[in-house]
Formats: sequence, structure tokens, C-alpha cells
Amino acid sequence: MFEVAELGHKVSKADYNEKVPTLRTQLLTVQQQLRDHDYSVIILISGVDGGGKGDVINLLNEWLDPRFMRTNAYDSPSDEEKERPVFWRYWRTMPAKGTIGIYVGSWYSNPIAQRVYDKISNTELKVRLTQIKELEQELSDDNTLIIKCWLHLKQEQQKKRLKQLEKNPETAWQVTERDKKHLKMYDTFVGVAENVLTETSSAQNPWLIVEGSDIRYSSLTVGQHILDKIKSHIVHCKQKQEIPPPAQPDKIIHGNQPSLLDSLDLSLSLDKDLYKEQLNFYQGKLNKLARQAHEKKISSVLVFEGWDAGGKGGAIRRLTHAMDARNYQVISIAAPTEEERMQHYLWRFWRHMPRAGRATIYDRSWYGRVLVERVEGFATENEWTRAYPEIRNFEEALTDHGIALLKFWLHIDPEEQLRRFKAREQISYKQYKITEEDYRNRERWDDYSLVVNDMVARTSTQSSLWTLIEANDKRYARIKILQTYCAKLEKMLDK
Amino acid sequence: MFEVAELGHKVSKADYNEKVPTLRTQLLTVQQQLRDHDYSVIILISGVDGGGKGDVINLLNEWLDPRFMRTNAYDSPSDEEKERPVFWRYWRTMPAKGTIGIYVGSWYSNPIAQRVYDKISNTELKVRLTQIKELEQELSDDNTLIIKCWLHLKQEQQKKRLKQLEKNPETAWQVTERDKKHLKMYDTFVGVAENVLTETSSAQNPWLIVEGSDIRYSSLTVGQHILDKIKSHIVHCKQKQEIPPPAQPDKIIHGNQPSLLDSLDLSLSLDKDLYKEQLNFYQGKLNKLARQAHEKKISSVLVFEGWDAGGKGGAIRRLTHAMDARNYQVISIAAPTEEERMQHYLWRFWRHMPRAGRATIYDRSWYGRVLVERVEGFATENEWTRAYPEIRNFEEALTDHGIALLKFWLHIDPEEQLRRFKAREQISYKQYKITEEDYRNRERWDDYSLVVNDMVARTSTQSSLWTLIEANDKRYARIKILQTYCAKLEKMLDK
Repeated sequence: MFEVAELGHKVSKADYNEKVPTLRTQLLTVQQQLRDHDYSVIILISGVDGGGKGDVINLLNEWLDPRFMRTNAYDSPSDEEKERPVFWRYWRTMPAKGTIGIYVGSWYSNPIAQRVYDKISNTELKVRLTQIKELEQELSDDNTLIIKCWLHLKQEQQKKRLKQLEKNPETAWQVTERDKKHLKMYDTFVGVAENVLTETSSAQNPWLIVEGSDIRYSSLTVGQHILDKIKSHIVHCKQKQEIPPPAQPDKIIHGNQPSLLDSLDLSLSLDKDLYKEQLNFYQGKLNKLARQAHEKKISSVLVFEGWDAGGKGGAIRRLTHAMDARNYQVISIAAPTEEERMQHYLWRFWRHMPRAGRATIYDRSWYGRVLVERVEGFATENEWTRAYPEIRNFEEALTDHGIALLKFWLHIDPEEQLRRFKAREQISYKQYKITEEDYRNRERWDDYSLVVNDMVARTSTQSSLWTLIEANDKRYARIKILQTYCAKLEKMLDK
Repeated sequence: MFEVAELGHKVSKADYNEKVPTLRTQLLTVQQQLRDHDYSVIILISGVDGGGKGDVINLLNEWLDPRFMRTNAYDSPSDEEKERPVFWRYWRTMPAKGTIGIYVGSWYSNPIAQRVYDKISNTELKVRLTQIKELEQELSDDNTLIIKCWLHLKQEQQKKRLKQLEKNPETAWQVTERDKKHLKMYDTFVGVAENVLTETSSAQNPWLIVEGSDIRYSSLTVGQHILDKIKSHIVHCKQKQEIPPPAQPDKIIHGNQPSLLDSLDLSLSLDKDLYKEQLNFYQGKLNKLARQAHEKKISSVLVFEGWDAGGKGGAIRRLTHAMDARNYQVISIAAPTEEERMQHYLWRFWRHMPRAGRATIYDRSWYGRVLVERVEGFATENEWTRAYPEIRNFEEALTDHGIALLKFWLHIDPEEQLRRFKAREQISYKQYKITEEDYRNRERWDDYSLVVNDMVARTSTQSSLWTLIEANDKRYARIKILQTYCAKLEKMLDK
């Protein structure tokens, strides 16, 4: 596939100087247009050593308006990055909507290097590429434009380039031992790269392969490609908007099949004495386990979802009571901030990923997408439908990183909910929790039941199971949650 | 000063159980009220080992609503934190307005420990404390409430507490070798602490010293103190608002004394050939120096201020042309985002501090506070007046950390500005830069001149000089900027 980039393309200085001003004007114009749209552009610049990645990136930085773009260089990850799932470092630097992010050393660098050095097998490479494809697909689904450029060099050219650089005392520093080693591994490297590029060139996110021997040629080609891609993306997105969505049948169809939730035995309860005893026991146990997890750098992510007044807050407090406040944070999910709205909806959950050995407890979570956003129509059908695989991938990234992931659904029945609303209104420091909206939501109980069943069915995977909590009795619910978390930590610590 | 905390205060279980529900209700209520105000609360919990800091913090986490608070534990700094000025880690986790941040191991921990271990002298400690006081003053000026609690123990109590913990296999882990070592250094530690607490107890931000031997007593005392402080702070801030500001004379008085800016020779220029030669020379030089700085982990912060159309963008591009795009970022300062508005105005500049060996180039900066915000009345007189020392302290934190700080004012005269506006309107990819507002601002040229002179006079310190750039001739300006940056890097690399 690289033959096309070995033909010795060149651009003369005169030609270059003539073409650049026009290209630059057009790039700036299109960058301005982009500002008004609610999607971002990610430009990946990869390629062989000596292929001129640095030169191309520096030129792009000159040509584009720095106010609405950012170049992110991903060298070896910092300790804060190593402590999180691999994609975290890309999420934290994701360009906001309307802006451009140039990625130097993207999510492709590590898998390629690992395979070249034979640190991962072809099968493992395939798994990594699948994760990358899923990530790119999710971003594309959010209308992010991903432009992938690969700068190629023939082996002789690479050798020549490195020699030139080395001869000149001004540039000799650019040639490292690693480069020389890589030169000898040219065939292996190009073989792996070919595999990776083929595997990850989709119709939506294809790779552009550019000959890197002449910087004028490569930068003009990359610049023109970026221009064309952004232009057609703007047109494409506009067209998509203009197509009226297909007539939407009410997607919430109430069938007759018994649901998972219906099968829960809400009469389960614990008497006060037994509760006290078990609470003491499990909190003591959790305290010890959480400490060990902290030492062994095992992180936890806990998700609490459930009916209003289902007892999420109380259950969370029973957990945190046993934990060290220095090692956990409770993140309550309310309306997104402006910076969060300028990003993919998962961004605001990524940003709170715990450091190694710590825990993040989400009081409501990314599941809002397939619950309230679905029922209330805040998310389009397309958006909430694709949210299921997106969420599965997101959670897989966490569990793959060795994070203990627990998801609790606190289930009560409508009568119990009403009792609790009334009771809350009697307690001074709980009154603020009850609003008109809570009563309104009750009216859509059946709709919510259906989407909750849907959610559990579609996002309970082997590595990331939902724990359904019979929560009509708060005592029973709290103990079951404590037990579940303890069991999970025990299992992870045994490994 | 610690005698009051050595009297053996105790609270019985019955008394505690009676008092907690009321306290908790009140805390939740006041926390709710806080939500509506545009200031935050920072609670520092410090004290001797075994003084029960962890217990108190865990209880506060139970009592308060986790949705509007966050506990930040500052252990040893991460590499990302070490690469920035010391206060960066506190700024990055600063609570948003309307919320509470509990700081475990605050900015006091390190100076105290360093002094106890004799790693810094008393004079150095004093300098550190001065910086802390300045930080607290700045936060207070922004209406942040800082509540400082110190948990104290008598030496015998500390010994007893550690022994108790050690005896119980459940808690023995809590006692480290470091604790035992600290026990022997009790007198030194308490001596240093006394010094620090005295030095940093201001009328506005006093320390509360609490006896830590009985957790019921200490947590009730701390909880009650927090409640009282927040309550009275809300009242105090409301009163402040109600007091009409004193009649404001027009602060921008145009005197007759010759100004710094007027003394600039705007006829300075470079002819094209000489410019090209020098541009080549200095860009080559900068490229080398920037590379060395990257290797030696010397970071740069460059500030560009100047008249509209003064040539900031062009000058920045001439710099970045010589730099590696992987190692710098250009931050253009426009309107703050919602998350930025929820913080102290300096927060949004802190967040872009470069990692070690990298550069951040600010296209407009924190000086907006004393320029446009002053002239247009977006900042109150009180706000822009105190901004001068705030900015000096901020910049001192950077230079103390070994960052190369450069500040450029690009000066042109009104005629040249008009010429440039007109010219821009002729160039397709520059048209977007010219708006109505630009013409409006021209009308206040004299006011702006005055505040710029003020700014330079009040923020050009020895370690952080303003470089005034005669910028009527773009070529001259660009070369002077390149020269200045090169000279600075050379100086820093020589050290």
C-alpha cells in the first residue's frame, strides 16, 4: 500500500510559494466556519522516523489560527496518565467543539511499537486495533472529524535522511540510537504499519498516505487534504441535519413479558438488630479491603442508579463511612457545564477517573443517556441507541485497566417511593431534595421501568454486571451493596 | 498557644448523639445557602499525627452533601505537579464558587515538615509563609472563606494514641515508622507549628486550635466552627454588597508627566534584507536554545500584550516558527468559560502552566484585569487595584519555580493602527480579525495609554520585567522579541 508514496513526489520552491498563500487563506476560512459548528476535528500525524512529522506539524501550526487549535504531543505517559485507562490521556486533551486538535503520537503509536518489538502478538494487536476503531467510531458518531495522515519514506530515503541529519551538527541531535535501531527494523516496522493502516482505514476514517521525502510536497498534500476533509465534512453534516428524521414510532413499547425488575423480591428486609450487626461487620471489612486496595493500587468505580428516593445517597454514605475520605470522591451528576457540553457526552465521566488505588463513586452516571435522556427525548433515538455499545466499550476500558467496576440499580416500587417523598418533606434537612419534578417523574413510571429493563439487559456484561438491589427496605439494600463491594474487592485482591 | 487544647475536653456519647442531628441539619442548610453565592469555602484540616485528622475529615464527608463539596488529599506531588510551581496543585483543585473544598495536607504541610527536618532555615520558612499569606489574602479578597483547623495533642496523648493504634491489629497499619520518628521530635514539631500558626493567624483567616484526643469533641467543635464561620461569612458578604461603594472619581486622570510609552522611539525600523538575515539568525538560535531548554526542563511563559493590530499574532508566529510544536502551546485569552467564571480570575491562567521544558505563550493574559477590565469597568476599582500585587505574586511563583517569564508590550501609534485596520480589511484571511469593536476601542486611546503606563510601572519587577517593543515597524518588533527571548534563555541556561 505504500508504493504510491515511493514515487519521488516533489514540489518546487516556486510552486510551493505560489500555492501556500491560497491554501492558507482557505484553511483559515474553513477554520472560521468550523467555529460555528458543534463538532471538532482531530488530526493525527503519524509515520516513519525521518518522515518529517515534526516539520508538517510545525507548518500546520503556522498556517492555522492558534486560537482555535491545539497540538498535543503524547510522549511517554506521565504517572497521572499511567494510573488511568490508556485512552484517558486522549480524552483529557480532546478538542472542544468548533476547534481542531493535532495529535502527535496518537493512540496508534504504542500498539505499533509494541508489535514491532514483539511485545504483543498479532492477536493482541488486533484487540487493540478494535478498541481504537471503536473509539474512532464513537467520535465520528458524535460528528467529530478524524483526519489520519501517515508520512512514509522508502528505506533508502530514511537512511539518507538520517545520515543527512547526522552530518549536520545543527540537526545531529535529532537522530537518536532508537532511530538507528529502527532503521534496521524498517521492514518489520513497515509491515506492522501496513497491517495497522489497512485494518483501520474505514470509509469514514481513511488514512492518507503521503510521501515524506520532500517537505514541500508533504506539507502541501497534508494541508490540502485537511482542507478538503473539513470542507466536505461541513457540507456532509449540514445535509444530515436537513434530512428529516424518519417518522418515529413511540419506541417505548410496553410488552407483556415479565421483566428482570419485576422479578425482584421487594419484600426482602433486615430487622434492625441484624442490620446493625451486619453493618458493623461489613463496614469493618470494607475498611480493611479498601485499605488493601489502596496499597495495591486497585482503583474502584462505583455507579449508583435507581429510582428517585431509592436510597442512593444513604447507601453511598454507608460505604464512604467505611472508607478514607482522602481516597474517594463522590461525583454527583447534574446538568453538564459549558465546557462539558463542548465535548462528547462521555468526556465528563472520563475526567473524574480515579488515580491508582482510589475510588470514584458516581451518584447517577453515563446511564442518564439511556434513562432520562431517552425517556424525556433529550437524546435522539440514534444517540441513545448507539449509547449501549459506547457504554460497553467505555466500561471495558475501565475493567481492562484493572479497575473494580460496580453498578447498582436501587429498585423500589411506586408506593414506597411516595411514602419516602412524604417522609422527606417532614425532615428539615431533606426537604430540599424534593421538587415538583420528582412528582412529575412518577407519572412516567412505566416508561422508566421499560428503559431500565432495556438498560440492564443491554449493558450487563460478564466483566461489568449490574447488581440489582431490592431497596424497598433500606437496611437490606445497604447491606447488599456493602457485601457486593466487599466481595468484588476480595476477588480482585486474591488475584 | 496550645494550652487551651490540652485541657482534656471530652464529649459524652449521649451528648454527642443529641447534638449531631441538629448540627448536621444546620450544616446542610448553610451548605444549600452557599450554593447561591459567588464564593467558595476552603477548609484546611491540619495538626499533629494521631490528632484525628482522618476521623474529622471522614465525619465532615458524612455530614455534608457530597454533591457540593470535594475532599482533596495532597500526598507527595505527582510528576505533573512537581513540574509546575508549588501552588499549582492547589489551584487545579480549587473549589468552584458555591461549593466547599476540604484540603487534607494543605500548603502548610510542606513548609512545616521542611523546617522540622531543618531542610529550610527560619528565614526561608518566613518567605514561604509570606507566600501562603499572600495566597490566602488573594483568595479572601475574592470572598473565598478559608477555615483553618489545627488538631492538637499533648505529647503523652500522642504517645498513648499511637500505642493504642499499634496494639490493635485492626489499626496497627496506621502507625508508620515516620510517626514514631515524629513522636521523638514532638517538641520541635510543636515549636515550628506554633511559629507557623502564630504567623499565619490573621483576623480574617485565624486558626482554630482543637484538642484532638476525643474524636467526639474535636469533630463537634470543628463542625460547629465551620457552621459559624460560613453563616457569618454569608452575612458579612451580604453587608459588604449593601454598602454603597464610595463615590468614584474618574480614576483615569491624564497628567502631564511624560510616560514610559511616550518615550519609545517608534521610528525604529529594519530594512527588508537585514530583517531576513536577522530573522534567520535568531530563529536558528532560538531553535537551538529552545531545544536545550527542553532538555534541561526549563519552561517558558511568554505574555503578549499590546494595542489591537500591534502585531502580536505575527510576532508569536515568528517565534513558534523556530520552536517545536510539540513543546509549546499558544493560549489566546478570550471570554472566560463557565467553569472559569466559577473561579478566581487567575485560575484560568494557572490551568495552562506548561509542563517541564515546555512553553506557554499567552496571546493576551492576566493583564486584561488592569487593562480592558479597568477601562471598561468590568472590574471594580477594588478588584483592579489589588490585581497589581496579585499579579506580582503570581509571576513571582513562576520565576521562583525557575520558569523563564517574558512579557512583551507591542506599542504602535494610533495612525499606524488605523493603517493596519484598513490593510487587514483588504486581506481575505485577515478580515475576520477586524470588528466594530476595534474601531470603538480606538476612541479610548488616551485612557488605554494611561492604564498601560500604570501597568508597566506597577508590574515591572526585577525578576519579571516588561519588554516594551517599538512595533510601528513589524520587522523591528519581531527581531527585538526574538532577541529578547534568546537572551533570556541563554541567561537561564548559563546558570
